[in-house]
Amino acid sequence: MKELEDRIQRDGTVRAGDVLKVDNFLNHQCDVELFDKMGAEWARLFAGKRVDKILTIEASGIGIACVAARHFGNVPVVFAKKYQSINLDGDQYVTNIYSFTKQKNYSVIVAKKFLTAGEHVIIIDDFLAKGNALNGLIEICEAAGAVVEGIGIAVEKGFQDGGEKLRARGYDLQSLAIVKSMDPETGKITFA
Amino acid sequence: MKELEDRIQRDGTVRAGDVLKVDNFLNHQCDVELFDKMGAEWARLFAGKRVDKILTIEASGIGIACVAARHFGNVPVVFAKKYQSINLDGDQYVTNIYSFTKQKNYSVIVAKKFLTAGEHVIIIDDFLAKGNALNGLIEICEAAGAVVEGIGIAVEKGFQDGGEKLRARGYDLQSLAIVKSMDPETGKITFA
Repeated sequence: MKELEDRIQRDGTVRAGDVLKVDNFLNHQCDVELFDKMGAEWARLFAGKRVDKILTIEASGIGIACVAARHFGNVPVVFAKKYQSINLDGDQYVTNIYSFTKQKNYSVIVAKKFLTAGEHVIIIDDFLAKGNALNGLIEICEAAGAVVEGIGIAVEKGFQDGGEKLRARGYDLQSLAIVKSMDPETGKITFA
Repeated sequence: MKELEDRIQRDGTVRAGDVLKVDNFLNHQCDVELFDKMGAEWARLFAGKRVDKILTIEASGIGIACVAARHFGNVPVVFAKKYQSINLDGDQYVTNIYSFTKQKNYSVIVAKKFLTAGEHVIIIDDFLAKGNALNGLIEICEAAGAVVEGIGIAVEKGFQDGGEKLRARGYDLQSLAIVKSMDPETGKITFA
């Protein structure tokens, strides 16, 4: 998606350790007009598929998924929660994910009543690198008996292997921008 | 807002300890069509005000704020982050908040570049009880020199004192549903 690539070029910052900061439009400050265009693009890419629900994960995925849902007939958005809260029921799907960004393990939870057998789901998230978070969400869908119709990602780090592995497993993975390389010295970003 | 009150009556569950679970449409599964109507209602209630930005807090506020932003001319949404991530800059506003739900203190962070002096802000969040999270966001706005034009809340627990204190301080607080009482024995919920 050219508009997203242009925006990453203009406003993204490359840091050492394969960090791409896009916090001024994607995951701290949110450009909701851009989110709306991203939603329209995923709707085009996933056209013809049955989508009963959008699944995402807190926190950065939520805004993108909720704005995108408008382009999928306002289907419900379920966001997986990263921390056990005393407000949650006991009846949950749980999986453990290692975050390279935060350098720790965390539990991811979806209440069983919000993901049921036979539901067709699109998973949406802001970033894909090694795919740990996505694999956790796919595991939860499998546990629920839900069908993963597709995966919509804003920014894929194409130089890491998460996307390649998911495509090899047959998932319809649609990343709107795939970063081929980025250089923390020069700030140069190239796209696939 | 009658539609939100009706939805809370129909789908909300009252638990011991003043817990109102509305996770099937507000803060785990999200009804984005309802969020859109809530956004339209806040736009009506805050009509005529200058709104440069919407400020919210992760995680449950993000979806509501991003969908509501469409009714405020697609202004940027900034969400305060609850945990320090190594992806964040050092240049942040930080405040500490005690969560009664999670029974612990946490730090709330907004990057200084995303909230600047003279900006007019609407704060949006899903719940207001004692007002700890909101007070933290207001503190951050004060530190930034931003003007809090109004506060939009989905569900206020009117039997706790957070809302009363904020109104006494002169804030234009617009809660779309104010719960007057709720009974975990009978499940009965009354609104103000």
